Amino acid sequence: MTKRAAIIGGGVIGGGWAARFLLNGWDVRVFDPDPEAERKISEVLENARRSLPGLGNMALPAEGALSFHAELADAVEGVDWVQESVPERLELKHKVYAQLAESVPAGAVIGSSTSGYKPSELQAGMSNASQIVVTHPFNPVYLLPLIELVSTEANGTDVIERAKEIISGIGMHPLHLKKEIDAHIADRFLEAVWREALWLIKDGIATTEEIDDAIRYGFGIRWAQMGLFETYRVAGGEAGMRHFIAQFGPCLSWPWTKLMDVPELTDELVDAIADQSDAQSGMHTIRELERIRDDNLVGMMRALGANNWGAGKLQNDHDKTLREGAGIAAHVDDVADLSQPVLTLHRVVPLDWLDYNGHMTESRYLQAFADSTDRFMEMIGCDAEYIANGGSYFTAETHIRHIDEVHAGAKITVHTQVVMGAGKKMHLFHEMREGERLLASAEHMLLHVDLATRRAAPPSAEVEAALVKVASAHAGLSKPEGLGRAIGDPR
Amino acid sequence: MTKRAAIIGGGVIGGGWAARFLLNGWDVRVFDPDPEAERKISEVLENARRSLPGLGNMALPAEGALSFHAELADAVEGVDWVQESVPERLELKHKVYAQLAESVPAGAVIGSSTSGYKPSELQAGMSNASQIVVTHPFNPVYLLPLIELVSTEANGTDVIERAKEIISGIGMHPLHLKKEIDAHIADRFLEAVWREALWLIKDGIATTEEIDDAIRYGFGIRWAQMGLFETYRVAGGEAGMRHFIAQFGPCLSWPWTKLMDVPELTDELVDAIADQSDAQSGMHTIRELERIRDDNLVGMMRALGANNWGAGKLQNDHDKTLREGAGIAAHVDDVADLSQPVLTLHRVVPLDWLDYNGHMTESRYLQAFADSTDRFMEMIGCDAEYIANGGSYFTAETHIRHIDEVHAGAKITVHTQVVMGAGKKMHLFHEMREGERLLASAEHMLLHVDLATRRAAPPSAEVEAALVKVASAHAGLSKPEGLGRAIGDPR
Repeated sequence: MTKRAAIIGGGVIGGGWAARFLLNGWDVRVFDPDPEAERKISEVLENARRSLPGLGNMALPAEGALSFHAELADAVEGVDWVQESVPERLELKHKVYAQLAESVPAGAVIGSSTSGYKPSELQAGMSNASQIVVTHPFNPVYLLPLIELVSTEANGTDVIERAKEIISGIGMHPLHLKKEIDAHIADRFLEAVWREALWLIKDGIATTEEIDDAIRYGFGIRWAQMGLFETYRVAGGEAGMRHFIAQFGPCLSWPWTKLMDVPELTDELVDAIADQSDAQSGMHTIRELERIRDDNLVGMMRALGANNWGAGKLQNDHDKTLREGAGIAAHVDDVADLSQPVLTLHRVVPLDWLDYNGHMTESRYLQAFADSTDRFMEMIGCDAEYIANGGSYFTAETHIRHIDEVHAGAKITVHTQVVMGAGKKMHLFHEMREGERLLASAEHMLLHVDLATRRAAPPSAEVEAALVKVASAHAGLSKPEGLGRAIGDPR
Repeated sequence: MTKRAAIIGGGVIGGGWAARFLLNGWDVRVFDPDPEAERKISEVLENARRSLPGLGNMALPAEGALSFHAELADAVEGVDWVQESVPERLELKHKVYAQLAESVPAGAVIGSSTSGYKPSELQAGMSNASQIVVTHPFNPVYLLPLIELVSTEANGTDVIERAKEIISGIGMHPLHLKKEIDAHIADRFLEAVWREALWLIKDGIATTEEIDDAIRYGFGIRWAQMGLFETYRVAGGEAGMRHFIAQFGPCLSWPWTKLMDVPELTDELVDAIADQSDAQSGMHTIRELERIRDDNLVGMMRALGANNWGAGKLQNDHDKTLREGAGIAAHVDDVADLSQPVLTLHRVVPLDWLDYNGHMTESRYLQAFADSTDRFMEMIGCDAEYIANGGSYFTAETHIRHIDEVHAGAKITVHTQVVMGAGKKMHLFHEMREGERLLASAEHMLLHVDLATRRAAPPSAEVEAALVKVASAHAGLSKPEGLGRAIGDPR
């Protein structure tokens, strides 16, 4: 049954939550008295639909249904999750929770997006305290995977486990804090940096642009993949963290931070910041900046994914859970109808696959086809373990026909036909489609190799048998259009 | 004439500077009394040679000569740059500068890697004060582009301009600070975050791993591309920075940071950090972590480069300065010998082009060939401006022969032959080599299109004339091996 989430309070954060749930197949019911709520959420959704589905390498389930409700009780009917993102005023949040107590199913989790309040403060005096946890996200919620999950003893382990499972299920990472503190963890760092940055501007040391450059050309890139301590562990070298702390620790007593005071937000300081920010970024609208940001986040997270590290590893792990729903078999023995070409790819064209002509660039067609070849190899038993044991297939020759254009966000499939498969040789023919529309075909001749000698060698008996099984099942298929073509042959 | 840099003090930072200069074609002369200096620098160089040459999309100049010198005066003979990276003790630095005053050429810049001292402190009492500036880098120096350049009134504008030019020339970004302060800019942020992190561990709120996850799954990814203020500008939405500050400013007076005190580095706290760090990262050696980090940094910076943004834009701008040295002509009229295939690619295989078989993956062969096609299009006048005006070439069909393997770090070239070029059609044949070794060939049929209708249409007269010029010059070339092959044809 389709799961159902209620979004209480829209805006950029509520809209980001709505997008996460919707694009992962949940029905989403929104309650927000703001007359602009529907417009605001649809703007966030537009950005999310553009960037999230291609973040991973598996197609997401069909989008859920989005509805707006004038009554809170109506919005939360039959839900599995309530996400509260109303303004940061405790009495307002308590008022919402009291109303929720009357209508939210007992098994549902009530998550709060609060960045400042502790869960004990949210729960105080509430009859539904056991359902209420902090689930603090980061903007853009539809791309960044971090959720700070903060609970108290009032929450049973079942609520916490359910919260973790649901957060993971929509492709995010529940960071469950052991103790509650004001502002949780991440915002403490943001707060410290923000305060220091205000001093630097107030004292005329640096502009907003210089501060941003000091971050994004240096430690910002480091932190995107290893954070603080693993970065310093590397800096400490073989001598380790103890050595590093011994070296760096004494600096703590140096007069390097101006954090003891809070700079007063005078009109002059606010003007200085706003004017510097205009000079730095004013050539782009906010909508443009959002898309530039999302393009960059998708590109960097996909780069991390290629190394199976950090936020990219989270995405890869999530992709594995989507494989079955995407209809991709683990082994050829699991394919329902082996007499037809096998589904080997079911994904969305990501933002980083485009080129200056505004469509998927040619090398990414081959990347998708190569991914299909990899999946097919896995399906006949040439998987990571087999490769680690010294056997693999190398592509010797490729022929691609580009038949039609495709753009970012398109859901594409590849079906794979075995033209010939026996001994060292594997001759494949892939067809890529968006729906019924044929986009491209790729014909590949692969050779099985011994990875020690890097020379052609027979595959294992199991792999060859699985390949021959598919080749035999495909023997009756007609010759696909384009097979055996050379460039310049008449069409 | 080859430029010459002296590295005073090796280690990870001095070694990183040595790598930057060497790999950009400078001769590097090292002075470091540490008997381990040569080993330490060669380890950094090994990492740098693995990751830096493929960071951009142009081959670097031939590596300079590295030498080690027992005498400081010998190391600095005839140099254009001295980089001082000795331990952070002011009297030691002053002793070094006094010795440098006797032997460093008057026109050379003396840069200090200090993270704590102000340039006025370094210059105090020195006869060569006008040459001394702070040039503070970030680890790994061979990949991260940020240099904090801090000067005083004792430095003439000529010294500052020369320093900026040299820093840019080795692919880095000189961030010139308007005023000197303790710890410059970036380390003030690192310091604030480090201090907060120590409190979180001491108070048992979070482990090193949880803190790293809170950073790298959230704001760390944001900061890698936009920094702090541009990120908040986006968060503020169309209402702009003033609105954002009005919303976020009041939080500054909330009790969110524990930064007023310095946690004492007791044995217990040091043990807690070291043990948590072992649990988090102990499964990898430092050397492994360095390579994982470098793989990630290269991948993310290349992803930013694909969007021409942040550190990736810096790299693209630097690449442009390398184009002439790489031998790639801007226009076919500039090609010295048009009777032979034209050099269209000269680059190094980057780390993110490998696959699980340990060699360049098949789609990256096509990416390199497609880059060659793009360069050739530019050379006949189908450049960014032409494309913006509505004309371009689309690839209709591709045939690739994979002849030999190639690995990360290999310098590869592609030469391009025009098989046929007239009207809407452009038939190209590329050959990729490492030195003389043929790695692959690619045959492409392209069609000129009208980008408004997305249909085949004739190119401009100028573009066609340039294409025909090359096609005529190549008409006498023999038919290349593999031209016109279909998959499965006998070799």
